[in-house]
Amino acid sequence: MKINGKAYRTIWFEKNIVKIIDQTKLPHQFIIKNLETVQDAINAIRTMEVRGAPLIGATAAYGLVLSIIEKNDLSYLKKSSEALIASRPTAINLKWAVDRIMKKLLGFNSDEILKIALEEAKIILEEDVGFCKSIGLNGLKLIEEIYNKKKDTVNILTHCNAGWLATIDWGTATSPIYHAHKKGIKVHVWVDETRPRNQGANLTSYELNEEGIPNTIIADNTGGFLMQRGKVDMCIVGTDRTLLNGDVCNKIGTYLKALAAKENNVPFYVALPSSTIDWNIKNSKEIPIEERDPTELSHIEGLNKDNKLQKIMIYPQKSKAMNLAFDITPAKFITGLITEKGICEASEESLKRLFK
Amino acid sequence: MKINGKAYRTIWFEKNIVKIIDQTKLPHQFIIKNLETVQDAINAIRTMEVRGAPLIGATAAYGLVLSIIEKNDLSYLKKSSEALIASRPTAINLKWAVDRIMKKLLGFNSDEILKIALEEAKIILEEDVGFCKSIGLNGLKLIEEIYNKKKDTVNILTHCNAGWLATIDWGTATSPIYHAHKKGIKVHVWVDETRPRNQGANLTSYELNEEGIPNTIIADNTGGFLMQRGKVDMCIVGTDRTLLNGDVCNKIGTYLKALAAKENNVPFYVALPSSTIDWNIKNSKEIPIEERDPTELSHIEGLNKDNKLQKIMIYPQKSKAMNLAFDITPAKFITGLITEKGICEASEESLKRLFK
Repeated sequence: MKINGKAYRTIWFEKNIVKIIDQTKLPHQFIIKNLETVQDAINAIRTMEVRGAPLIGATAAYGLVLSIIEKNDLSYLKKSSEALIASRPTAINLKWAVDRIMKKLLGFNSDEILKIALEEAKIILEEDVGFCKSIGLNGLKLIEEIYNKKKDTVNILTHCNAGWLATIDWGTATSPIYHAHKKGIKVHVWVDETRPRNQGANLTSYELNEEGIPNTIIADNTGGFLMQRGKVDMCIVGTDRTLLNGDVCNKIGTYLKALAAKENNVPFYVALPSSTIDWNIKNSKEIPIEERDPTELSHIEGLNKDNKLQKIMIYPQKSKAMNLAFDITPAKFITGLITEKGICEASEESLKRLFK
Repeated sequence: MKINGKAYRTIWFEKNIVKIIDQTKLPHQFIIKNLETVQDAINAIRTMEVRGAPLIGATAAYGLVLSIIEKNDLSYLKKSSEALIASRPTAINLKWAVDRIMKKLLGFNSDEILKIALEEAKIILEEDVGFCKSIGLNGLKLIEEIYNKKKDTVNILTHCNAGWLATIDWGTATSPIYHAHKKGIKVHVWVDETRPRNQGANLTSYELNEEGIPNTIIADNTGGFLMQRGKVDMCIVGTDRTLLNGDVCNKIGTYLKALAAKENNVPFYVALPSSTIDWNIKNSKEIPIEERDPTELSHIEGLNKDNKLQKIMIYPQKSKAMNLAFDITPAKFITGLITEKGICEASEESLKRLFK
């Protein structure tokens, strides 16, 4: 999708270097960063220069490629794969992408593995782009249905960033929105700010602006009231891990919006490529919920009067804070899952019917 | 209550001047400000140097006193009363306090009205202190019950600031907490940050720190997940306007926590002095919901590296934002109302039994 009118992807490979958009600097600075070693890739994931389940999966895949370029050695590669998986705990795509590449390399000798890993990383990328496009076309039908009934702008609420910046292109939750916009359907997006890291404001609103899609940032506190007052036609969010029973682990705060949607009869959809499905864990309590540094709450960065980036401390000196990054939305609050293969109920039966 | 070990109230009258703590500068600076004219009082309310339903009621009462000191003239006083009521739309106490003083002045001549207004303003203040103390003693029983059963720290979640800084002393939602702490009951408070103005972090956490009560600031997105995981024993919030049917209008985001509390069987209490009850409006849709300047979202103030206050812009340049200040929590989500006269159900029958 576009930034300043020019089409980008979030990650690409060029002359043995992985290029990413440093998302910690958005929306104030647009910086393309080089990842040259597996450690660079791990750091980029950990510090959230890249984030979003599909994108960190893709970054991990390229992390293995970088590891092989650095040192074509099986034990180093194994260490790299473990370190990549450990770089963030909650999104399943990280393990999914690493396992996929590692499995692919089995049986090849050291002369061949760079080529194979590179090919597989490219396939993962292209597959994700294709999946996100299909999610968009499938979700488009839902937006279109509302539009045909309402004959007026469709108001869609989203939480965090499940936009193209969270994937390779198109996004998951945003893909139906981009496709609706392309088709001339009037849409307006309520963008949850998404504290503490404000990915809604910093990334979702930013990318929607760049594509010319009307959107309004709201405090995370606001969505429930907007639903009470009939100002939200549907919610679409992403997911970092989808359980077979239909429970969805996504950015903290998703659950609160799902509760409000249920109470106010607002359809609540989760958009996901099948790479976020965890086929093993049965109970959402087994999902590791990342607890991040509390300074992500107490400190915040923005532009000062001189248009320079500045970080300030916003909390009382004596206060402590806690920073949980994800929550669980039980399946019963989810109207449907929008996947690359179609829309299904958030249930084991439906997911299995679609994917197995 | 205490700041830096010294006892304060939020507002007091001294040598024809009204003194307030400038709450827009907390927690970074503790500044006592003089209000010398009714316009000063209006500005203090509008810019939220004073905020919280009971405190803006008290400030309006003293605003009328200042108006009489400025110009002992009936038509000026009437204008002042209208301007004070219009200074913020949602909290009912503003109108309640102004009407109460104006009614009291009826029939007195211009020689007497300053004395009468001053006396009534003082009564409003002392009454609020008494009400908040009683709310504390009534709410204390609820905390004690949980403590006796759990035999461990009681975790209480609160939203925004319904602390002593929102009243004259003790607070509404915090008063039971302060009373429990005084009685040696172990409490810990989950403090919702409360975007966009962060009154939870800036004021509630600050005042709890100053009284030595353990507390943790969390993003507004977090409370639902904590309830899912059994980390919240009860919620106590304040209210800006309580309808006779038990619906509660409070800081935006309250509703989302009430939904989560209901879903997870966490008791959800609203603490209020009877001055916040609106005996007239029947339907919550008739309550004027204040929409404030969107720059309260897009800009934020804090301390830079040199410990100087600095305001930064945190949103994308092209983005727009919307800033609704309150929402409605329907009575069905409220376990009980903690008032100065006792605890009752959130219903017309119960409220009337207690107050009429």
